[in-house]
Amino acid sequence: MKLLLVGFGNVGRALVELLAQNRRGLQIVGLFTRTRGSLYCEQGLDSEALSALQPGEPLSNHPRLSAFATGRSVAEILAEASVEVLVDASPTILPDAGPALGWCRQALERGIHVVLANKAPLIADAASLHASAAKSGARLLFEATVMAGTPVIQLARHGLRAEQVSEVQGILNGTSNYILSRMDEGRRFEDALAEAQELGYAETDPSADIDGWDIAVKLVILSQVLFDRPIALYQVARQSLRELSSADIQNAHAQQRRWKYVGSLDESGARVAPMALPQTHPLSQVAGAQNAITLQGKTLGSVTLQGPGAGGKETALGILNDLLELQGMA
Amino acid sequence: MKLLLVGFGNVGRALVELLAQNRRGLQIVGLFTRTRGSLYCEQGLDSEALSALQPGEPLSNHPRLSAFATGRSVAEILAEASVEVLVDASPTILPDAGPALGWCRQALERGIHVVLANKAPLIADAASLHASAAKSGARLLFEATVMAGTPVIQLARHGLRAEQVSEVQGILNGTSNYILSRMDEGRRFEDALAEAQELGYAETDPSADIDGWDIAVKLVILSQVLFDRPIALYQVARQSLRELSSADIQNAHAQQRRWKYVGSLDESGARVAPMALPQTHPLSQVAGAQNAITLQGKTLGSVTLQGPGAGGKETALGILNDLLELQGMA
Repeated sequence: MKLLLVGFGNVGRALVELLAQNRRGLQIVGLFTRTRGSLYCEQGLDSEALSALQPGEPLSNHPRLSAFATGRSVAEILAEASVEVLVDASPTILPDAGPALGWCRQALERGIHVVLANKAPLIADAASLHASAAKSGARLLFEATVMAGTPVIQLARHGLRAEQVSEVQGILNGTSNYILSRMDEGRRFEDALAEAQELGYAETDPSADIDGWDIAVKLVILSQVLFDRPIALYQVARQSLRELSSADIQNAHAQQRRWKYVGSLDESGARVAPMALPQTHPLSQVAGAQNAITLQGKTLGSVTLQGPGAGGKETALGILNDLLELQGMA
Repeated sequence: MKLLLVGFGNVGRALVELLAQNRRGLQIVGLFTRTRGSLYCEQGLDSEALSALQPGEPLSNHPRLSAFATGRSVAEILAEASVEVLVDASPTILPDAGPALGWCRQALERGIHVVLANKAPLIADAASLHASAAKSGARLLFEATVMAGTPVIQLARHGLRAEQVSEVQGILNGTSNYILSRMDEGRRFEDALAEAQELGYAETDPSADIDGWDIAVKLVILSQVLFDRPIALYQVARQSLRELSSADIQNAHAQQRRWKYVGSLDESGARVAPMALPQTHPLSQVAGAQNAITLQGKTLGSVTLQGPGAGGKETALGILNDLLELQGMA
C-alpha cells in the first residue's frame, strides 16, 4: 500500500520508524512538508535516509533522497497514479484547516483513503469529507486524532457497536491534566504551567490546552462518531482552567474530591469544564499526562479506557493502526 | 441472519430481549436447552413468547411456541439449511466442555459461524476450532467470554493491532474482586464470601471464583488472542484467594497498597495470584464487581480498559457485538 505522508515533525518521523521496524507492505512513496520541500519516488522512499534527517533540515539534504526532491504540491503528488493513502500528520491549524481540507477532499474524491492525525479537517468540514468518501468508496480514518494511539475511536465504532452510549466524560488533554496533578501536589497554577512548558508539554501560547480548545476539538470528533451528530466547535461550552485557584484545590481535598479538566458530551451538547470529581470516580485517578474516557452505556453502564493521549510515537501508532485496518479490508 | 441459540439462562434470555429491542435482521430460528427441550421455526421464534417463559419452565409451555417444540439435538438443528450462526450461551463446563466442543466443531466445519459466551470450547480445544474455521471460512468469535460485553477481545484484536503487547494484568473475576473490596472495608474473608453468595455473585461452590479457575480460563483465551500462543489450563500457576488474611489486608493499607486478585500473562507464562498493588496502579482502584485489564505495549506503554465483567445482559451485549461484526462482514 503506497502512502503519501504530509508533515514530518515528531509524528511523521515516528511513523517512518514504526514502518521501518515492521515491514508490512506499507510504503511511503511521497512526503510533503510546508517548509522543507517534498519528495516523491514510486518505488518507495528510503526510510533509513528519512530517519537520518535532522529536525528542520530540508528533505533534499540527504544524498539518498536528493534525486527524489520535487517542487510538487500535495495535489500534484496525489495526481500520481500510485498513491493509495494520504496520511496527514501535519499540525492542527484552526479555525479553517488551511490547505489540509482541500487535499483531504481531493484524495477522497479520487478514491484515495485518508488517515488523519491532523484534527483540523474534521473540525472544518467533516460532513463534506464523509460525503466524498461515501461517494468514491474511499475510507476516512482518524484514530490518532483523539487520545493518540489509545484506541478510543475503535472502541466507539467497533468495540461498543452493540451498545447505546448516552454520555461521555473524558480527560482528553495531557498538558492540562499534568498541570492539575502538580497543583494537587501543592504547586500554584502559574508554576505548574511553567513546568509543563519547560517539559515541552505546553506551547508558549498555552491557550489550546488550558482554555479547553483542544478538548473541545476532540468532543466535536467524538460527537460525530458516537452520536452521528455534527456539532460545531463554537457550540462547545468552554470554561478555562485559569479560573481554578489553589483554594479550590484545597477545598476539594477536604471533601475527598479531585479537580479534573473534563470534556463531557451527551444528547444535550458538549462542554469543557474543571470538575471536582469524587475519588471513587474512575477519571479522578488519572494522573500526569495520561488521558482517559468513560462512556455510559444503556446495557453495560460505565466503560473506561485509559492510556497515553499525546506524543510522537503514540500518535504514529494510531495512524499505523488505521493503516493496518485499511490493509485488512483491501 | 438466522441464529441457533444454545442455552436459555440469564444470558440467553437477555440476548432475546436485546434482539427484540433492536430489530437488526438477526433472528433466532432455533433454541436448544439441556433440560427444557428445544424449538425450531425457520421463520423465526416469537421473541415476546420466549421472554414470557419463566426461568426453568419447559420451552413448549407457551402456546405460541408449542407448535415448534422438537426433540431435535443441536446437531440435528444445525443440519437445517437455514442456520447461519450458532450462539453458545450455555454454562461453562470444564474440564472437557461436554457436548459443546462437538457442536461448535460441527458448525464451523459446515461453514456456520460460532459466537461463544461459553468459555469451555476454547479451553478444551481452541486449535481444532480455529483450524475448522479457517478451512470452511466461517468465523469463531468470543467477545463475551472475557469481561462480558466490555470489549477486551476487540481491543486486543483490532484496537491495538499495530501494537506489540508484551504483558497483561487484569482483574478478571467480579466475585473475587467484590470479596476483596469488602475485606478492604473490614470484613473477614468468610463473611465477605457469604455476602457474595447471598447476592448471587458466588456459587455455592465458590472454587471457580476464589481459587482462580475462572481467571485462569480467561488468561488461556487472552493468550491465544494476544500472543497467538496456546497454553493449557493446567499451565496457569494459581494461588488461591483463601490464603489471604485480614492481617495481610491491614498491612497493605499501612503501606498505601491494596490487595487485588490479579491474572498476569507475558511471554514467560500465566499466573493468578493475590497482589498488593500500590494505590497509583490503575488496577488498584477497580472496586466491587467491576473488571479491568491493563496491557503493556512497546509503543503506548500502559493501556487500561475497565467495565463490567459479568451479568446476563452485559454478557449478551458481548454476543450481540460479535453478531453485528458478522453482519458487517457479510
